[in-house]
Amino acid sequence: MYHGIAASAGVGIGHIVLLREAVIEYDKDKSVDVEAELERFKKELEVFTTNTMQVAEDVRERIGDKEAEIIEGQVMIISDPTLKTEVEAAIKSGKCAEQAMEEVCDTFIQMFSAIEDEMMRQRASDIHDIKTRFLKQLIGIHDVDISKVPAGTILVARDLTPSMTAGIVKENVVGIITEVGGVTSHSAILARALEIPAVLSIENCTTSLQDSEEAIVDGDKGIVITNPSREQVEEYEERYKKHQQEKKDLLAFQGMKTKTADGIEVELFGNIGTPKEAQTVVESGGEGVGLFRTEFLFMDKSSLPSEEEQFESYKEAVIAMNGKPIIIRTLDIGGDKEIPYLEIQKEDNPFLGYRAIRYCLDRPEIYRAQLRALLRASAFGDIRIMVPLVTCMEEIRSVKELLKKYMQELDAEGIAYNPNIQIGVMIETPAASIIADLLAKEVDFFSIGTNDLTQYTMAVDRGNAKVAALYSTYQPAVLRSIRTIIQAAKAEGIMVGMCGEAASDRRLIPLLLAFGLDEFSVSSSAILATRKAISEISLDKAKEIAEKALQLTTEREVFEYLSQNMQ
Amino acid sequence: MYHGIAASAGVGIGHIVLLREAVIEYDKDKSVDVEAELERFKKELEVFTTNTMQVAEDVRERIGDKEAEIIEGQVMIISDPTLKTEVEAAIKSGKCAEQAMEEVCDTFIQMFSAIEDEMMRQRASDIHDIKTRFLKQLIGIHDVDISKVPAGTILVARDLTPSMTAGIVKENVVGIITEVGGVTSHSAILARALEIPAVLSIENCTTSLQDSEEAIVDGDKGIVITNPSREQVEEYEERYKKHQQEKKDLLAFQGMKTKTADGIEVELFGNIGTPKEAQTVVESGGEGVGLFRTEFLFMDKSSLPSEEEQFESYKEAVIAMNGKPIIIRTLDIGGDKEIPYLEIQKEDNPFLGYRAIRYCLDRPEIYRAQLRALLRASAFGDIRIMVPLVTCMEEIRSVKELLKKYMQELDAEGIAYNPNIQIGVMIETPAASIIADLLAKEVDFFSIGTNDLTQYTMAVDRGNAKVAALYSTYQPAVLRSIRTIIQAAKAEGIMVGMCGEAASDRRLIPLLLAFGLDEFSVSSSAILATRKAISEISLDKAKEIAEKALQLTTEREVFEYLSQNMQ
Repeated sequence: MYHGIAASAGVGIGHIVLLREAVIEYDKDKSVDVEAELERFKKELEVFTTNTMQVAEDVRERIGDKEAEIIEGQVMIISDPTLKTEVEAAIKSGKCAEQAMEEVCDTFIQMFSAIEDEMMRQRASDIHDIKTRFLKQLIGIHDVDISKVPAGTILVARDLTPSMTAGIVKENVVGIITEVGGVTSHSAILARALEIPAVLSIENCTTSLQDSEEAIVDGDKGIVITNPSREQVEEYEERYKKHQQEKKDLLAFQGMKTKTADGIEVELFGNIGTPKEAQTVVESGGEGVGLFRTEFLFMDKSSLPSEEEQFESYKEAVIAMNGKPIIIRTLDIGGDKEIPYLEIQKEDNPFLGYRAIRYCLDRPEIYRAQLRALLRASAFGDIRIMVPLVTCMEEIRSVKELLKKYMQELDAEGIAYNPNIQIGVMIETPAASIIADLLAKEVDFFSIGTNDLTQYTMAVDRGNAKVAALYSTYQPAVLRSIRTIIQAAKAEGIMVGMCGEAASDRRLIPLLLAFGLDEFSVSSSAILATRKAISEISLDKAKEIAEKALQLTTEREVFEYLSQNMQ
Repeated sequence: MYHGIAASAGVGIGHIVLLREAVIEYDKDKSVDVEAELERFKKELEVFTTNTMQVAEDVRERIGDKEAEIIEGQVMIISDPTLKTEVEAAIKSGKCAEQAMEEVCDTFIQMFSAIEDEMMRQRASDIHDIKTRFLKQLIGIHDVDISKVPAGTILVARDLTPSMTAGIVKENVVGIITEVGGVTSHSAILARALEIPAVLSIENCTTSLQDSEEAIVDGDKGIVITNPSREQVEEYEERYKKHQQEKKDLLAFQGMKTKTADGIEVELFGNIGTPKEAQTVVESGGEGVGLFRTEFLFMDKSSLPSEEEQFESYKEAVIAMNGKPIIIRTLDIGGDKEIPYLEIQKEDNPFLGYRAIRYCLDRPEIYRAQLRALLRASAFGDIRIMVPLVTCMEEIRSVKELLKKYMQELDAEGIAYNPNIQIGVMIETPAASIIADLLAKEVDFFSIGTNDLTQYTMAVDRGNAKVAALYSTYQPAVLRSIRTIIQAAKAEGIMVGMCGEAASDRRLIPLLLAFGLDEFSVSSSAILATRKAISEISLDKAKEIAEKALQLTTEREVFEYLSQNMQ
């Protein structure tokens, strides 16, 4: 059994196909005709660039925009004049194109690797990929064609480069194993996009694993089992089947109301990232959308979306809801979401930086297009506006002022909108939790964002493995904060929902019911399971569990107690 | 009037000395004898390295260890074999040493500048400094001797390089102005260490300001006034004098107890960073040390300090206190404090990362030396141990377990310590504030760290200018959090102090008194002013102010209300 990083969820059982790196050899001492070699380099570089752009295009069609951009990033590196100039200089000093390219790339790789920064290491890895592929092209080496591997293949490679991934046929590849790469590496992103289970960072896996060996890739736990026993294969097949059966059983909850065992009704909404998913939420039995992330409008582009484009998207989503409510969160960029054309400088602590409402209020010309688009779309259904990362009263008051102003603009232009559109705050900072009683007087609803709330309350970057143990919603401090927020909303009589991952956590559902949460917003795939979990507990029992849980003083005790009480 | 970044506080009135960059010229096409040129480069590099090390040594003696390390960083860059190899390669291709050095440095500068990271840009700036100085040495250009400028000089330069700073005679230079650099740049650090007012990042100041022009450098507000009117000069001289007079008046509070106008006594402690400063606190009238930062033991070195070294430092400090209490905070590295040999990986959000108690509990072999040293030093006076960045009960319980274990070790070794040594928590995370009632049952005292508490509560990096407006202790959420912490300590009957900057803020003192803060820990220079401010207000009045302030809902209102009530 090998342990690595669980980078893409799911289980795959199959046979290994080892992608060994080809041995790249050429005559270093051959004398070259400088002019001819420069010409050769120039031509091969053109071919290489065209090919790489073609790969990016393929990926865009077969996988997605975000994944294609990873490969386009390589095109940018290739097109960097520094790289080209340096290689040409090396050729002029009498080296062949192969050697020139190799040496220049190695210098860059060495430099970028020396910088202790995930992004820089990724750049080193990209240059390594470019170097290898370019040398192969120059020498004329042709790789194993990944698109031709048989069904049930587990790919094993030193690194899953973007150019390799481009060839993967998702139906045939059941697992991916690599020697390098973390959860945020390109390999991981691509594996998740393809929904192929992946375990990364298994040292020496390309030498310790054998071609055509049988193996199990457990992308949930980050383990690889080679030559599994009959029992292990059966166990994993069992797990896979059980999971499929549970999925089927949940269909009984389709179209039902969401009620506790003693008949208390709550609302069950879905979280979405594109207008198309609104349809999925409705089909999955959701009673509304509790979080529509609008970043997609800004991320898959090279310039700002117009008011018109945004309006069309929001309208499409609200029409798909067919009268059901849809809570749309205004632009939440910054932090871990970088969008180059928005020109947000790199920050030392982006999670504590210029992001979300801070950015929007500072750039009213950008925010205006979004708020006007939302108002215009509100004429077509129950749109509610949610403001992220609020920490003080001024922020929400400013947003309300802006909305008032844009309503007047629309009045003057004779454009329809809902004048009673609801405005809410996404409660996700300790400050917002502490002044929840004040904020509740200003808005129509709250939605608790448990991911960021946990992160800021515990002062832990949720992406940092070194401190991951502290990042837990079961922390007494976080649970108390959630309770405070819900109580503040109740005291003021406004609706309070939750759109973080905790809303679908079966351990936490009793607590949320006991505190009085009105609305649970979860991913589409979790809607029916959440409805089932809510249906299995009475409010009295939930209150009993909550009272006990809040008396416990450590995360471990809370987790274990809630686990015991999970049916 | 010119606006720039206020990088070093204070006011300076004087005359400008412009440090223009020398024009570096050499014959690029001269043919060279490769062997001779390589030999020349080698020798000049040795001279250059020796000179730079000498400069570092001078700075260490005249300014400090931390500042010397900035220059030693340049020695490291010079000694980098990549740089040397590349220059030699360029010489071998027929270039003279000047051109070789210039081109190689420029490549590095270009590369490092392209990376959007303050550290990388700083490295680019260092290489630029090295290149310029090395070329001057090769060509034989001698700079203006900064150490010879007359009294009352205001230095104006594109950038204040470490090598320039090394020559500054603090008595003669009353102000510094540069075109580039931020609050954390080397220029800023060095200016602050020399206590010279500085305004940085004034665009084109080397061309728009004139040599020997009269000017005022206002390092508090970040402004430069050239050819000031008589009124302006008088106003600034007035400000300077008034400040000096206030300093004198405060001496009346030397040796007095710290009491409110109606006689309620509180404790007034000092914050220190080295054992020597303990003496300064006592001399400044401090009744104890409320925060002894132990990072100095780790930062001015290239390897871990031994238990013995630490013991000697803590012992020196506690003996200087002569029976008065001294609260020593255990290692608080990570975040913005990087220590290379501790091997903390670069993190995306260091303030939310692997730091302080998180690091210490993960590296018990390092923590052990500190805790044992503290215990051993506790035999010599009233040492109290304070644990930073606590977010949950397990952390403080683990520290108590470790202390118990090390006490047993010391017992076995027959070494003395105070078995009743007090243990406290530095309350500086939202989580610690929320569970303050639980933590109060585990420890002997609290000390509120308002800087980090504000940062995490508001989810704002205090070093990020783009969001600086949100970073304020007057935020209702922060004030409520402080009140919660103090009330929790009071309810449990333990001592509660404050060692953040807020403790010496005259606007906040009434609130802190009203909430019941027992101990104010401030910088040595603020001790007497804080004692005076406390003496001017009665507890009743403080409670009245606090009650009103806590009803306000915005930072602006709080700030203005408290400003009005500041005598």
